[in-house]
Amino acid sequence: MNVHEKQFLFDCGEGTQIALRHGRIRMMRIDHIAISHMHRDHYFGLFGLISTFNLLGRTRDLHLYGPPALQGLLAAQEAAGETVRGFPIIFHPTSTEAPEVLFEDGSVRLESFPVRHRIPTTGFLLREQPREPGVKRAEVRKWDLQPSEVLALKRGEDVHREDGTQILFADACHPVPASRSYAFAADTRYWKQVAEWVKGVDLLYHEATFLDAMKARAEKTYHTTARQAGRLALEAGVGQLVIGHVSARYEGPEDLLKEAQAVFPETVAAVDGLILEVQTRC
Amino acid sequence: MNVHEKQFLFDCGEGTQIALRHGRIRMMRIDHIAISHMHRDHYFGLFGLISTFNLLGRTRDLHLYGPPALQGLLAAQEAAGETVRGFPIIFHPTSTEAPEVLFEDGSVRLESFPVRHRIPTTGFLLREQPREPGVKRAEVRKWDLQPSEVLALKRGEDVHREDGTQILFADACHPVPASRSYAFAADTRYWKQVAEWVKGVDLLYHEATFLDAMKARAEKTYHTTARQAGRLALEAGVGQLVIGHVSARYEGPEDLLKEAQAVFPETVAAVDGLILEVQTRC
Repeated sequence: MNVHEKQFLFDCGEGTQIALRHGRIRMMRIDHIAISHMHRDHYFGLFGLISTFNLLGRTRDLHLYGPPALQGLLAAQEAAGETVRGFPIIFHPTSTEAPEVLFEDGSVRLESFPVRHRIPTTGFLLREQPREPGVKRAEVRKWDLQPSEVLALKRGEDVHREDGTQILFADACHPVPASRSYAFAADTRYWKQVAEWVKGVDLLYHEATFLDAMKARAEKTYHTTARQAGRLALEAGVGQLVIGHVSARYEGPEDLLKEAQAVFPETVAAVDGLILEVQTRC
Repeated sequence: MNVHEKQFLFDCGEGTQIALRHGRIRMMRIDHIAISHMHRDHYFGLFGLISTFNLLGRTRDLHLYGPPALQGLLAAQEAAGETVRGFPIIFHPTSTEAPEVLFEDGSVRLESFPVRHRIPTTGFLLREQPREPGVKRAEVRKWDLQPSEVLALKRGEDVHREDGTQILFADACHPVPASRSYAFAADTRYWKQVAEWVKGVDLLYHEATFLDAMKARAEKTYHTTARQAGRLALEAGVGQLVIGHVSARYEGPEDLLKEAQAVFPETVAAVDGLILEVQTRC
């Protein structure tokens, strides 16, 4: 996920470097990697990617988010290889107790939330920070706005001068673009609680491993059916749903896509190389 | 390396499963995996391969050879993923003290030998066991050979009967095919001692990371030049040399191949998908 040229990678299976190359992603610009859980298809490309960062001479910090065990494994394999890493990894352990904020700066906030898989697993939620409204240049000139007045307008307040002049926020400021949001929920059983935590996000990735005919198997293996994914998107009132992690028993995602769309029409299927733009709803 | 349908895999970098699929190798028939050292490009495909074995329902033993640290890492990541593995892994720790026999059965013997890399590393040597000579059926009938006489011939002895009949081993038995051998030496500095340990093998894989113009860099980074690899093959009197692990600084292996061939003409360059038949020399 590219947010104003900050790149976040969610999960990193074996072969992720190949996928990044195919997608022409500038991998050295990835400063944040979030790992949902310790199943191999979700983190086995991580150490190779870190190794490549090192080979390419990276010095910039890498923020790594994931289960506490990930930190130990990374340390163990670096020790075994007597690795000399040229850049710091700042490890942020995730917890499956409750949602929490993992990272925050002026433009973006990363949160985790628990999901229900066979082993401790979290989803992730990425939100643009609310942007400060910009005061229109013409208004600054027209009213000869003072710094204190500009700051008041940026806080969303109207300005009332002693001479009775009123300068309204709504007139003086550019409309603020809505903050976009993306949630990543994999791997997990259908769990209604997740809908609360991802409520209203613009784009939700949710796993959909099985068709609803295999609901019992999905439940047993801690996965979700396409229909359930659609239902969760509906309950959460998200803008768009993208489903993936389709079982190899299906030839392709077509049937799962139809099933999810029957419940939640704004659904697409994740395929290798798919690029989605996160759009706010009007 | 396929020896009478026993399959041995030497090192297992990320993406090995993809290479196995491309090569149409029946991966479930791999019962032996030997890891030379704990650098990521040599073992990062291992855990994914083990995972695939598990998904495919493997129950057969897997023999795994490698540095002691490998066992700990495997245990740690299986614990993190709460993996329930359906087949046993028999771990054989390697040592860099001296050559040693790692595995032996009726048809094959696997040995390790130390090489000189930045971290503890071994090469591997695979030999067919000497085969028992077969007695020609026509000879059995012609002389009405008794079981004790057959056993004597199989031991390479001639038979002298009391009536003065002489049945010579050389006449009565099929010629025994020579035992073939393969050695794998990577990653390593050029180290003359290795020539003793791989003396006379039919096929030697030796790394050749740099051209000889970069000999100092090869020494410093514990790698070998193409010329040095050729020299080692010559010193060891091997049948054929295959070089690989070429630095990404070179466009392809052509120049390295020429350099090695100038010293040891029976050299080929390893490229993805290359299949070599190990042949004995006459």
